[in-house]
Amino acid sequence: MRSEFETADFGPANFVPLSPVSFLKRASLVYARKPATSYLGLTRSWAEVADRVRAIAAALSARGIGIGDTVSVLSPNRPELFELHFAVPLVGAVLNTINTRLECETVAYILSHSDAKLVFADPALADLLKEAFAQNSKTLPVIDMPRTGMHGFGQTSYDALTDTPPHPWSLPQDEGQALALNYTSGTSGKPKGVIYHHRGAYLMALGTVAAWSLPQNPTYLSVVPMFHCNGWNHPWAMAIVGAHMIFAEDMAAETLLKAMAEHRVTHLGAAPVILQMLAESGGGPAKPFAPPIKVMTAGAPPPPSVLEKAAALGLEIMQVYGLTETYGHISQCLWQDAWADLPASERAEKQAMQGVALPMLEDLRVIDRQTGKDVASDGATQGEIAIRGNTVMKGYYKDTQATEAAFKDGWFWSGDGAVVHPDGYVQIRDRLKDVIISGGENISSVEVEAILYRHPAIASAAVVARPHTRWGEATCAFVELRPGMHAAEEEIIAFCRQRLAGFKAPKTVIFQDLPKTATGKIQKYILRDIALSLGDPDQP
Amino acid sequence: MRSEFETADFGPANFVPLSPVSFLKRASLVYARKPATSYLGLTRSWAEVADRVRAIAAALSARGIGIGDTVSVLSPNRPELFELHFAVPLVGAVLNTINTRLECETVAYILSHSDAKLVFADPALADLLKEAFAQNSKTLPVIDMPRTGMHGFGQTSYDALTDTPPHPWSLPQDEGQALALNYTSGTSGKPKGVIYHHRGAYLMALGTVAAWSLPQNPTYLSVVPMFHCNGWNHPWAMAIVGAHMIFAEDMAAETLLKAMAEHRVTHLGAAPVILQMLAESGGGPAKPFAPPIKVMTAGAPPPPSVLEKAAALGLEIMQVYGLTETYGHISQCLWQDAWADLPASERAEKQAMQGVALPMLEDLRVIDRQTGKDVASDGATQGEIAIRGNTVMKGYYKDTQATEAAFKDGWFWSGDGAVVHPDGYVQIRDRLKDVIISGGENISSVEVEAILYRHPAIASAAVVARPHTRWGEATCAFVELRPGMHAAEEEIIAFCRQRLAGFKAPKTVIFQDLPKTATGKIQKYILRDIALSLGDPDQP
Repeated sequence: MRSEFETADFGPANFVPLSPVSFLKRASLVYARKPATSYLGLTRSWAEVADRVRAIAAALSARGIGIGDTVSVLSPNRPELFELHFAVPLVGAVLNTINTRLECETVAYILSHSDAKLVFADPALADLLKEAFAQNSKTLPVIDMPRTGMHGFGQTSYDALTDTPPHPWSLPQDEGQALALNYTSGTSGKPKGVIYHHRGAYLMALGTVAAWSLPQNPTYLSVVPMFHCNGWNHPWAMAIVGAHMIFAEDMAAETLLKAMAEHRVTHLGAAPVILQMLAESGGGPAKPFAPPIKVMTAGAPPPPSVLEKAAALGLEIMQVYGLTETYGHISQCLWQDAWADLPASERAEKQAMQGVALPMLEDLRVIDRQTGKDVASDGATQGEIAIRGNTVMKGYYKDTQATEAAFKDGWFWSGDGAVVHPDGYVQIRDRLKDVIISGGENISSVEVEAILYRHPAIASAAVVARPHTRWGEATCAFVELRPGMHAAEEEIIAFCRQRLAGFKAPKTVIFQDLPKTATGKIQKYILRDIALSLGDPDQP
Repeated sequence: MRSEFETADFGPANFVPLSPVSFLKRASLVYARKPATSYLGLTRSWAEVADRVRAIAAALSARGIGIGDTVSVLSPNRPELFELHFAVPLVGAVLNTINTRLECETVAYILSHSDAKLVFADPALADLLKEAFAQNSKTLPVIDMPRTGMHGFGQTSYDALTDTPPHPWSLPQDEGQALALNYTSGTSGKPKGVIYHHRGAYLMALGTVAAWSLPQNPTYLSVVPMFHCNGWNHPWAMAIVGAHMIFAEDMAAETLLKAMAEHRVTHLGAAPVILQMLAESGGGPAKPFAPPIKVMTAGAPPPPSVLEKAAALGLEIMQVYGLTETYGHISQCLWQDAWADLPASERAEKQAMQGVALPMLEDLRVIDRQTGKDVASDGATQGEIAIRGNTVMKGYYKDTQATEAAFKDGWFWSGDGAVVHPDGYVQIRDRLKDVIISGGENISSVEVEAILYRHPAIASAAVVARPHTRWGEATCAFVELRPGMHAAEEEIIAFCRQRLAGFKAPKTVIFQDLPKTATGKIQKYILRDIALSLGDPDQP
């Protein structure tokens, strides 16, 4: 009797490997005539996009690309990059989108480490790619993506391949098979290749539709680069609901605001820096967008001031949290009705929390690594965010050691220090390595930075530890001023002391341009070195 | 190199068996203080419901119920039946919800065939259950569900078990493990036990959230009985979005309309007969519900007249299609903007189509079983609906023969004859065995019945074939008149001829009460026997 309930005797009618490719197949039928992509005035329907995807897949197959082969792409967000999110997995190959802002050395490293077999490249990036090939002393076949007036490598053009007779729809035999490889741009060391699989991408996409309450046929502005966690897996999610994907020529505030108005954009995902740019551009619409545009944002918690300005522009922002290793967002700051009555700045602080788990995540916990237990939900006790779920990477490509370290004790360890509030909402206090310990007290650099960002003259800020004989460590702030603005060290310290416990306020403020990675992350390890070299401020 | 992309070397951090139990665990944290269930003025939060679920699970476990054990339930929709949708799968057991309207013989058959180990029963159904035990000469342990003033079996009460120390959260080892067993109430023969598994229920729930564009925290009126496909899997879907589940004391139009207004219901699922009852009750609100209540309906396509009246009441109806074997709905009649400009009756006809596949379904095809090929999308050529996906049953319990017949050639065969319209929308023309073939033309009994339902005097109608010397078969209508109404055979035939091709119109109309199953399905096989016994109308 029991065996009938337990045996997995499934056939093709009742077992189908989970793959986001299925979402495109369905969209090509269900949303056949609805707009799928628009760029430079050219709109294609879901049926047309699916035809192009199948043609590109067939062309890849004809070039010997198949299961487990890496296909790299160097391109900003364009309809063709969106199409490759389906064409590459359709033949069982692995999509490796490379950050276009990276320096040549890293591009060369990724092409080599990923075992790329073929590269799709924007002709505007042909020189970078040629240099990378030269560094590796190895040239790969290149397919030029469309760009008016530019020639690229001149071997094969993407457009020419769209005439290839279509590849049949097919799915991986094993849903755990890889479909993407994303290199993390760590602030130090060589980037690591994070492997995504079909099952994870499928669940991430469906979970995102549920978490973001996506309607049928939203209009989505493609902002978050598809070389970051495959655009937070949004390309796959958007196929589920038959979205209209709008691609902009560049990421200037003016261009984006125009596209938002013109296409009546309903949804977008973007880093806080983009929101800040939009909110401060002054080039927005005469009236706020109505209904508000739903915006998913991730990365550093956006400063309250940005949230406030964005709300005034008609942007309804939901903070999410995740890592490249978790396919992007796995927690979301779900709105709570009680927040509506709070003063704007307090409300904005609530909205900057990392929040609660998305539906497809199994566990989002904050654990004290000493005891292995959950921290108290008191909004004060700090632990490390630990994650379990089907949207956690398969592992780091060719790096067993790093994979094992990340997966210790049956959890994926985020490296982010956080607290849990009494309402269950998680809030990051710090990247663990950024904690400053002064007089036995933990100081969150994020907290101090948030205060610094409120100062009208400060454009960017980063806080690190500086050695201190008496207190062990002291807070050291590095700040970049807005053009034409001035501020003295004493004034900034006083500004912080007014808003923070005395021990948290910086003891030193250093004015300089902040060193950043190609992706715009501040390279704190450089600042830490500077702070270390300064020595103890009380013993000059 | 390739092996790293292909090997499934997963651990607890990045592989979690899919199970709807995970949705409740998450809801107990994310929606802890939000209302989960309301009945008779008592509201419980998601944290409270989760506590009760874990207590009941522990109580089941203490009674020896575990993996693969069947737990039967005889109850109308109540908060406790909702809780059992999580408590039974939490211990790895199989939930068998039995239709409370069934005759004793069938209840006895199901209890025996399902190998039930324990029964939860509404005390109002204690006599039915005692009789079924007597028929089987076998008594099972019974847990009485709450009902004021009724004693039930008096062994153990559900409420007493909610004090049991909580069962830990746990998941099945294999996501293909069974979690529910639903007996189909066929119009003939013994009912068959359809097995659902954790993976299917998980995907069905997530797919439903996406397809129905469910918002966060909807208010859901529990109408579709949980003994039909586990209430179309809605209990599991509602946990994803933290819905407030409203339970009504009975299904009278007045009771439901009052609950809809009082709780500001946003969503419900119900059979067309319920919509007809609501639409025709006259007891609705003074103004239509605004915003409209989103209603999922399935079963016989609702007659256009019902759709029109329901729209006037403020119900936004989406027709869906599915079978017990597919966990309920696997296609949906997605709204098309162009329909807004159609006259009301034409629009209603569009809305009565079965439509397009839900996101979690892999294939919904209409296939000519002679050729094995898809029929043309011409809205005319008929084939059989064939289905593939993870939300297709594991099989029929202890019935290998029926399972094999249903799964021929790698498809699940629905037994429903349908056409595909040029826009890709599927429309059922007939249960295949209901096709009437007259003069070489196929006549859809559904089509003729839809016309009959438009006649003001007709309450119910069913059309079957009557033998005919000249034409092979002729259409024979059985009709049940509304109380106090009259209509002559000639008049009804003329009414149909005005609205249908001549060959389709009934040649005979028989006035009688229509024989129905316990679930309200008209038993056509009885009518076919009557029609057969009548012989050829032209050769009396």
